[in-house]
Order: sequence, then C-alpha cells, then structure tokens
Amino acid sequence: MSRPRVREFGIELGRVAPGRLNMITDVDGVGVGHVTVIEGDDIRTGVTAIVPHKADLFEYKVTAAVDIFNAYGKTVGLPQIMHEGVIETPIMLTETLNTWRVADAVLDYFPKGYNRTPGSVNPIVGETNGEYLTNNFNRRIGKDEIFKAINDARKTENKIVDEGSVGGGTSMTGYGLKGGIGTASRIISGVTVGVLVQLNCGSLMDLMIDGVPVGKELKLEPPERSPGNSIMIIVATDLKLDSRQLMKISKRAMLGVARTGSYSGNGSGDFTIAFSTGAKNLEELTGQVTRGESFLSPLYQATVEATEEAVVNALFKAETITGYKGHTRLALPLDQVKEIFHKYGRNPI
Amino acid sequence: MSRPRVREFGIELGRVAPGRLNMITDVDGVGVGHVTVIEGDDIRTGVTAIVPHKADLFEYKVTAAVDIFNAYGKTVGLPQIMHEGVIETPIMLTETLNTWRVADAVLDYFPKGYNRTPGSVNPIVGETNGEYLTNNFNRRIGKDEIFKAINDARKTENKIVDEGSVGGGTSMTGYGLKGGIGTASRIISGVTVGVLVQLNCGSLMDLMIDGVPVGKELKLEPPERSPGNSIMIIVATDLKLDSRQLMKISKRAMLGVARTGSYSGNGSGDFTIAFSTGAKNLEELTGQVTRGESFLSPLYQATVEATEEAVVNALFKAETITGYKGHTRLALPLDQVKEIFHKYGRNPI
Amino acid sequence: MSRPRVREFGIELGRVAPGRLNMITDVDGVGVGHVTVIEGDDIRTGVTAIVPHKADLFEYKVTAAVDIFNAYGKTVGLPQIMHEGVIETPIMLTETLNTWRVADAVLDYFPKGYNRTPGSVNPIVGETNGEYLTNNFNRRIGKDEIFKAINDARKTENKIVDEGSVGGGTSMTGYGLKGGIGTASRIISGVTVGVLVQLNCGSLMDLMIDGVPVGKELKLEPPERSPGNSIMIIVATDLKLDSRQLMKISKRAMLGVARTGSYSGNGSGDFTIAFSTGAKNLEELTGQVTRGESFLSPLYQATVEATEEAVVNALFKAETITGYKGHTRLALPLDQVKEIFHKYGRNPI
Amino acid sequence: MSRPRVREFGIELGRVAPGRLNMITDVDGVGVGHVTVIEGDDIRTGVTAIVPHKADLFEYKVTAAVDIFNAYGKTVGLPQIMHEGVIETPIMLTETLNTWRVADAVLDYFPKGYNRTPGSVNPIVGETNGEYLTNNFNRRIGKDEIFKAINDARKTENKIVDEGSVGGGTSMTGYGLKGGIGTASRIISGVTVGVLVQLNCGSLMDLMIDGVPVGKELKLEPPERSPGNSIMIIVATDLKLDSRQLMKISKRAMLGVARTGSYSGNGSGDFTIAFSTGAKNLEELTGQVTRGESFLSPLYQATVEATEEAVVNALFKAETITGYKGHTRLALPLDQVKEIFHKYGRNPI
Repeated sequence: MSRPRVREFGIELGRVAPGRLNMITDVDGVGVGHVTVIEGDDIRTGVTAIVPHKADLFEYKVTAAVDIFNAYGKTVGLPQIMHEGVIETPIMLTETLNTWRVADAVLDYFPKGYNRTPGSVNPIVGETNGEYLTNNFNRRIGKDEIFKAINDARKTENKIVDEGSVGGGTSMTGYGLKGGIGTASRIISGVTVGVLVQLNCGSLMDLMIDGVPVGKELKLEPPERSPGNSIMIIVATDLKLDSRQLMKISKRAMLGVARTGSYSGNGSGDFTIAFSTGAKNLEELTGQVTRGESFLSPLYQATVEATEEAVVNALFKAETITGYKGHTRLALPLDQVKEIFHKYGRNPI
Repeated sequence: MSRPRVREFGIELGRVAPGRLNMITDVDGVGVGHVTVIEGDDIRTGVTAIVPHKADLFEYKVTAAVDIFNAYGKTVGLPQIMHEGVIETPIMLTETLNTWRVADAVLDYFPKGYNRTPGSVNPIVGETNGEYLTNNFNRRIGKDEIFKAINDARKTENKIVDEGSVGGGTSMTGYGLKGGIGTASRIISGVTVGVLVQLNCGSLMDLMIDGVPVGKELKLEPPERSPGNSIMIIVATDLKLDSRQLMKISKRAMLGVARTGSYSGNGSGDFTIAFSTGAKNLEELTGQVTRGESFLSPLYQATVEATEEAVVNALFKAETITGYKGHTRLALPLDQVKEIFHKYGRNPI
Repeated sequence: MSRPRVREFGIELGRVAPGRLNMITDVDGVGVGHVTVIEGDDIRTGVTAIVPHKADLFEYKVTAAVDIFNAYGKTVGLPQIMHEGVIETPIMLTETLNTWRVADAVLDYFPKGYNRTPGSVNPIVGETNGEYLTNNFNRRIGKDEIFKAINDARKTENKIVDEGSVGGGTSMTGYGLKGGIGTASRIISGVTVGVLVQLNCGSLMDLMIDGVPVGKELKLEPPERSPGNSIMIIVATDLKLDSRQLMKISKRAMLGVARTGSYSGNGSGDFTIAFSTGAKNLEELTGQVTRGESFLSPLYQATVEATEEAVVNALFKAETITGYKGHTRLALPLDQVKEIFHKYGRNPI
Repeated sequence: MSRPRVREFGIELGRVAPGRLNMITDVDGVGVGHVTVIEGDDIRTGVTAIVPHKADLFEYKVTAAVDIFNAYGKTVGLPQIMHEGVIETPIMLTETLNTWRVADAVLDYFPKGYNRTPGSVNPIVGETNGEYLTNNFNRRIGKDEIFKAINDARKTENKIVDEGSVGGGTSMTGYGLKGGIGTASRIISGVTVGVLVQLNCGSLMDLMIDGVPVGKELKLEPPERSPGNSIMIIVATDLKLDSRQLMKISKRAMLGVARTGSYSGNGSGDFTIAFSTGAKNLEELTGQVTRGESFLSPLYQATVEATEEAVVNALFKAETITGYKGHTRLALPLDQVKEIFHKYGRNPI
C-alpha cells in the first residue's frame, strides 16, 4: 500500500484549487523523469529530469528566471539564466557530488536525444546533499541514468509522476525525516502553476504542516543531525511571462517553504528555477489589455501554496530508507500526524 | 485599557526565548522614537526613527545590509548600504509620500543633533503606503517631527517603545485590519536579535497566527481592498558581523512574514535592513575560534521568529482608526481570536 | 564664442555614426531640460530633467533598467526600476544634497504638469557631489526649478540641448577639470542610442581622449582633490526592449567611461539608467524573426561609444567656474589638447 | 625565439609599477599550473589551475568575490562564492565543454592531493569557448590533466608562468587574433594585485593597445567571425579584505578590458573572480587605523591596469595556431604593431 499524498490524507493546504493531478505535470508540456539507483548497502541515489516540453530545448528555449535564497549549494547553470532569461536544456536534479557528471552527460544526450551536437550549451543541474544515506563520493549517476530520466520526462506530460524517495530525492532528508521529491499545482483564472521540490532541509522540531506544529508533537527518537540542508524548487507555469516577471515568481517559492517551518539554515543551498511554457497569453485569457502587473499576485499565491504542498507531499510519500553506514531516515509517521491534527482542531481522514 | 501583545495574550510564537522587553530595544544601544500626527479628519500619519546607538552615526557608522524581496517601494538609501556595508544615519520609517521630505529633514538634523554639517550623507528612509487612512499627498511630516523622533530614539535604549498605530505605522493596514508598528526580540547563545516592522501588507483571508488560520475564521465585514501592501523590516543584533553575513540574516526576515500568511503581493515594497551594533564578539562569546558560518543558523531562526512575532504584535496592539474620507480600519478582534485559538487546540489566556 | 564639442574639434570617437544632433534628443520623444542657478559667490547649482516622451509618464510608463557599478551615491528610485522594469516619472539629475527635495518636488509637478495627484509614485533622482564649487547644504533647488526643468524637457524632442556647466552639472568636476553635462548618440541599423552623462569623476592624470593620455600631458597646476567622484549616466533607445535587455545595455555604459580613463574610485556613485521609448520594433526593422539576442551587440557598441563621447563632450563644453570659498575648476584647455593630439598622431582641426 | 611581453616591447601600460615578475604569481602564495593538449589535427585544448596557496584549500579557505558582467557563460561555482565569500578549491580555467568534467575531476584531486574525501565541495571552473580551433565536444581534459595542473600550480609561487596559447587558453581567440592566457601585476603602497586572464573576446577592429587603435590600423585578412566571445579574469591580492570589498575590486576588472577596446558582446561570458590571500593587514602596512574605504581606490587602479596589461600580454605572447577543420588564428603581428605605435607617437623598442 502506497502512502497517501497530503490531500488524500484529508488536509487541504491553502486556498487556491489544485490542478487535475495536483502535480507539476498539470502544466501542459511539462514532464518529469526519475531514475532511482539502489545498490548494495551504500548506494541510494538517483536523478530527476524536468522538461518544459518534449522538443529540442536548445532550439525551442523557454523563458526562465532564478532565485538564489541561500547559496551554500552547487547548482550549475544559474548565471546564464539570470542574464539571458532562458533555459536551453532539461533541468536535472541529483545528489550533490553527481552534479558535474550529470551536467556533462546532458551534453551527451544532445546528439542522441535532440540530434544536435552543441559547441556551447548551458546545462542546468540542481542538487542537494544525500551523503547521510548514500556513498556520494562514488558518483554513481552516469549517461545511462541521464538518458533514461530525460527520455522519460519527455513522455510524462499530464501524467502522474512519482514522489518521495525517487530520482534526485532518493537519499534526501526533510525535517529530520525521509524527504525527497514532492510536487503540487494550482489553477487560478485559467493559469496553471506547478511546483516540484527536492526536499533536503529543515530540522524536526520546526516541521509545521498546515500550521500545526507537527515537529514539536511527534514522538520520535531525535534524528541524527542532517548532513544535508537544502532545497531545490522548480516552478512551471503556462502563462507567457518575461524573465523579470518569473524572477518575481521564483522569489515567492521560499515563502511556501517557510510555511512548513524552515528558516533556511546556513549550510543550505536554496535555489528556485521558474520557467514559462508560454502557452497562455494574458490578453487572450482576460479579453483585455492589462495595465501593470497586479495580475501576478494570484500567481504568487499559487506559487506559495503549491510549494508548501509539494514540500509536504515529499514527506507524506517518502518511505523509510536505510543506506550508507547503516544510517536510517524514518518516514513521517502518518498515524501520529493524524492524532496531532485532531489535537489541533483539524479533521483529516 | 491597552491591548495586549501576543505573548501577554498567552501565545508563544517560536522556540527561542525573547529578550527582557521582547523588543528591538533589547539590543543594547538601539533606540526607537515615534512621532504620531493625528489632525482633523484626514491626517493620520507619523514617523519612526530607529538608531543603532546614541552617538553621531556619521562618525560611528554601523555595519549593515539589506534584502530587497519585492521592490514596489520607494525606500531611500539602499544602494549605498549594499556596496559600502554601513549605515551612517538614523533609519526613518514613514508614510510613502513623506519619504523624501523625511530624508531631506534628516540632513537638517545633523547640525543640530550631531553638530556636523555634511557635504554628503546617505539618509535611510523606509515607507509603506497609508493613503487609505491619511491624505498622503499633504506630506505632513517635517523637520519638527524628524527631530523629535530621532531625539527620542536616542533616549530609549533598553526601554519599552510603543507599538500599533504609532509613528510611521499610524495609517497602516495589516491583513485588512489595522496594522502599524510591531517589535519582538530573541536571545540565543548570548546574542540578541531584535526586529521592528512597519506592517502594511497581507489580505484578511491569509492571516495566520501561530499556524492558526485566523483570517479564514474571523467573522468580519470583508475590508475594502487595502491600498497599501508593503512591509518594512528592521533587524538589529549585537553580534559583530560583516555586511555579507547581515545580508544573509536580512533575507530570513521575509520567512517570518510568510509564517503570518503573506505571499508578498505585486504592489508590495518589502525591504529588510539589518544592522549590527558590533558589541559582542563571537570568539569571546564562545571562547574558541569559529570555523565556517554555521553559527549563523540560530540567528536566522531568531530573526524568523522575531519577525513573525513583530508582525503579530503590530496587529495585537493597533487600535481601530477612522481617518481620511471616513475610511476605517478595524483592530484585530481579540475576543474572536481567543475563540478561534481554542478551536484550533491552542490555549491562550 | 562657445567651446566646440569634441567632434567639432575634429576628433571622431568610435566607429559607429552619430545621430543628426549627436545628442540623447536624437531618440524620438526624449527631451532634456536644464535649470542652472548661479547666485552670489557660493551657489553654483542646478537640475536637469530627462523625459522619454512628452506625455504623463505615470500613465505611459517606459521600460527601463539600471546598473549599479559603484554605489557610494544617493540615487533615488532604483529598487523599483530593478523589479518592476519601468520608469513612471521624469529622470532628474542634480547636486547631491538637493536629491530629496528634488524627488519631493517631482510629486508637486504631477498635479500641475500631468493633471494627476498620485498616492504612490516613484521619483528617479540621480546626483553627484558638487560641494567644491557650491554651498550644497543650502539645497537651493526647489519646485520652481523642477517645474521649469521638466516643462522644458517636454519641449526639446529632437532639439539641441546645452552641455557643460548647466543644470545638474553646474558644479561638477571631471578629471580634475570642469565637468558637467555631456551627451552623444549613435545610429546603427536604424536604431538610435542616446546617452547623457552628469560627469563628476576621474583624476586629471588618468584622462584619456580617443586613447591619447591627455591627462598626463597637460601642463596645469594640479587641481585640488575633487570632493565629488561620481557619474550619472542615462541611456535612451527607441528599440523596443524588455527590462532584462536594457539591464545588459546599462552595464556597457561604464565601459565607455573606462575608455576616458576612470577606474571608478571608491567614493564614486556610478549609476546607469537605461530606458526604451519602444518606438521601433526589431522584427519590423529587420523584416524577420530574430533568434537569440546577438542583435544587442551593436547596441552595446553604440552605448559604449556614445557614453565615451558624452563624457568627453562634458569636458569640451564646460567653461571655467569659480564658486564657493573661491574654489575654481578650470576648463579643459583646448589649445593644449590640440598640441597633445598632434604629438600622438591625431589630426584635430 | 619567444615573443616578448608588451612591457618588454617597450610599452608601459598604466601608471602604477608592476611587481617583480609582473605576473599574478607576484602575490605570495599564488601559483599557476598549465596543461596544454595538442593532439592530431583537431585537439588544441588544455586547462589552467590557479591556487591562492599551496595548502589544502578546503581546510584553509580564502576570502573571495565575483563579478558577473555578462553571463553568456557556464562558469561553475559562483553562487556559493557570492553568499559564503570564500573559495575552497583551486580555480580551474578550461575550454567550455570541458567545464563539468574538470569540475568533477577536481573532486578526484582531493583524496590524492589534499588527503581528504569531501562529501560536499564547491569546485570553481571558468571557461571560454574554443570550438573554432579545437573539437570541443570531444572533451579531452580529464583527471590526469587536472592533477598535473593543480600540482604544478602548487609549485609556482613567485615563479614565471607561461602565457599565450597554453592551458585553458590554448584554443582561444582575442580580438580576432590568437588569444589565450595573459597575466600582469601591480604593487602599490606595499600591496600586490595580480591578474590572470583567459582572453577569448573582442573583434579585430576594436583592438586598442595603450590607447592606440591597433585594430583599425592592422593590415590583415579579416578573420572569420570568432565563435567564442568571452573573458575569464582572476584577480589576486595579498591585502586582507572581506568579500564585499573584493566584490568592488572584481567589478573594476572589466574597466581594464574596456581599455583594450571590447564592449562585451552579447554572447560573452565575462566573469571576474577576486580573492585575497590575507597575508597583509592594512593597519600594519599604514601604521594607523583606517576610516572608510578610500584605501581601495589605488587597488582599483591597480586592478584596471593589471587587467589591461594581462589582456595585451595574452595577445603579445600567443603564437599562430592552426587546428580543427584547418582553422587558423594569427598571432598579433608585432612588426606592424611597432609601426603603428610610431605613427601614434609612441616609442616602443
């Protein structure tokens, strides 16, 4: 029996309605591919690819922006996005020490996957540190995994994607518990905003779900100090926006993380990458010329809520994992969560 | 009978202990002066001065940094802080359209207050928009008010300062209710972090206090749309830090705001100014040489919690005000808040 | 007899052709108004207004961006431009300590000049420090000067504007000599780029004109140390660009300043504001859909060259001024410049 | 017969005296190692390592900052430097598509070179695009080359290092001519500033040397359009500075590039990394407590001049190379340069 997502558990975070799947893949064109590698006692790793569309991204770049909230992290490819305002490769998420091999393998994907040999290309690789559960110096992720992740991503438009201890999230820790990949979406005024996170931040005592201080109330052995301490956030929307507008959206994602209790520790690499597929045009949606940018405010709200829910989904879906050196990260104990929620006036199933 | 602060109400926000006053003035040297101007039916305005110490700030500059989260705002003096890393004048908070007169009057303060006539000086003036309650084009704040605010600020070290509809917060709106000035502090490992906010942001439906969705539960006439939509945040600490470290601290303040429900609307000017009085030295506090900057993490937590509590204090302390064009902003109805808190498993007095 | 501009002197800077006037007013719509105030022995000051078009700027905002190269400066209004990407008021240039009075007076201009009373508006005021030649604490510039400067700016589209010791440049120093306002323009592929500078930076020894080390060769009493040390640069173009693209253009202006010898001293406030009137569309100009942004490179070159020439024009046009405390700034001695140019293989008239 | 450096040619750029070697290795502790790979007809590549000192950099981090002038580039490791203010690995320079393999190999260096296996580390790899002269998709640079480059760098303190078509500069183009690695230094008030560039930018027509328009005057077949268009700049100093101060220094480097004629084309990745070895203390040097940061201005001048001279040295030292697809980049023809200099009133040897 698979663990439920938070909304299946009866908790509705935020005020805006989610999309059909309540996943980043609700944004038309966006796909997600995970490759998870569990080998022996010490390898618990993987890679996740996110594509804005199925086509050759170098030929059909998408508008993008980034927010760098805390930069104790190695994410590759950000400066060019900041100045040029576009993404020209799939976005890859992985474990810290695999970052550069993954970036290099993205180049190898081009001839096979896009029938193009680039002389210059800007790979985007986000990472968080999973050394507690995996022997990360091993750098297990190679071309085969990258190829499969991107190819799978190109086939998952509007499809359900896995969450929890999968792909780049395999060895990750969230709030001292098992973290990993989570996703959610919102639809507002005909615009879809989807978020995917690779959750590796937070300390147990700070965990807050829908405003309930779950971390303080959980009866658990205190976890060993988390060696990782970061979050990667990907925000996708179908509304045509320029890079400056996406920058403003990207900055809201950390407000959603804050609602789950994190204060972004010093060793944290907290990066948000936001992109637009450009499928929807504001004037067509509203039937009028828009003045100013107050139309962005609902998208900010959608981004905050979807990020909050994506973080919580990562915790809800991730299962207990034991890995490197016998280290274990426990799954969020849902039975306890139910009791805590009742105590705090909430009514989950 | 004065309204209580949130902690007097029985709600303890966060996990870190507050300072003696639970105010920014817990940071030795820091003073706050308010001048509130209520005149006729249409003027509800004021100015607040924050000083890091009593002495001539141009002579004894303090280390500082800023975070610009959303920049639909007119705050004066930020670029020089970003590059030079210091503050050389009192920090002034006021209503939007008074911003530049206040900055100019700060110059006039120098000969009288500091016995110095500058040929170049960088005034720092933060603002939020109070046009709903005050006739702001009138720009009522002048030299007299600035002088008194700064002089008062130089006398309030370690003293209680007013909150709510005072000083720069007089005409401000928070979460559709009466907002204004709030403050709080934290002490952790011998270091004090104090925060003062001028709250003018948020919509009623989003208000969250200690994780309780107060905004959704309040039974109130829905307020007219808030014309203002911003927050100014001042963070003070006595730990000697460089400007880059203060930049990282300043970025955490918005995570505290997020815990109260705001997603930072597009018309928001959300600026944080962080400074250090430099009174305490990490090596002396810890008795050892520190490696890396993980010592900052508890200060981040302190900043997040103190900001959250300062925002809530602004709402708890502010009284209902009627002003320009008969507009009214209601105070947060504390009786309802008590009921809501009980419903959500909390136990305020 | 008025002093010549550098091109009238027979020196052609750069490779791209200038516009008809070789001024920022070559960009259709752009106007410049100067008010110069010379009073008694001690007041040598003024203000300059630059408007992107004649109409109400709050109603018809123009796309803009800024570059902050060195921020020992007080320029008002930059954060909002950085996030919102527009200018909604005339750009004002003045002497440092007048900055905030000028910003405040811009508000007063709105009801009279634009028939609008704003509740929120973002004045843009750039400044450099002229305390050597003017009693700047006096802050002489008020509403009358601002009104006249803006009104004049709204009438000078495609007209010749004054340079040298006029407007905001009245008391300024360039390379130890009399500096002030200078302007130039370039036309490339049907696009016009215009630049206006308020020059107050550089030391005499570093002055370079068209690659000739004029500063080293000039036989002059060494000037007293310049108290000012800054440059304000305004870049205008008629090509429709977004704010991110204008940001990239704005960054090139300092490369043009560098060609005149400055290394941007630590006390320098070096800010560039770039805006687009949006009159010309790339696809219409080229008759084809453009891929990528290599079309920007010629505009960068145009910006660098026009900035270089604007700086040099400020020096060529400014006349010797004596002011506050009997201080004098000498005009660039053109007879010596001619000799130096001959020595270095150039052939001015 | 080796080609001369520009100063050996009789041209003294700037006003500040160079260090003993006039190289970045004049900064005590700093070393540079090049590995150059010339294989068959199509491989012309390499890698350059710069170390601030001989010891384990992860253990003994050095203070650092970056400037991102134009970000069409893939440089790895910048965000963490911007927030944390330190460098913890050697700085590597290479050809674009090798970037991520080089970063990954830096990890492998740690166990062998520093006797440490990191779970998290921030490699710094700068790059420029050499695809015109080398088959860059081949990505020829691997562990062996990285190991040798770093080991050599750790042995070259205060030693002469190669310039021109070596290491990361092997396949690079400068101003349409053969570019590559160049270095220079300045000593001012007892402080050493050293600069090393990997030059791959500029168009022939724009080349300016000591203010002389060499590019316009050279009689050469016009080169094919340069596919690369970037410059990497490393600035080292022995003065103890914080990261914010180094940020201000790093911004000056592009002013030095501007003096050689470049306007930083749109496809350019122009990044500067500045670091301090911290060996010298301002108070000890001056015997007094310093107020403000005007002491930085001479260091800015030193940075501008050393960058300018490093760029020119790259051109002076690089020899003609023929590589991939038979493409050739010609060396700067020094006989023509001499004639041009005479024409422009200069007196080289």
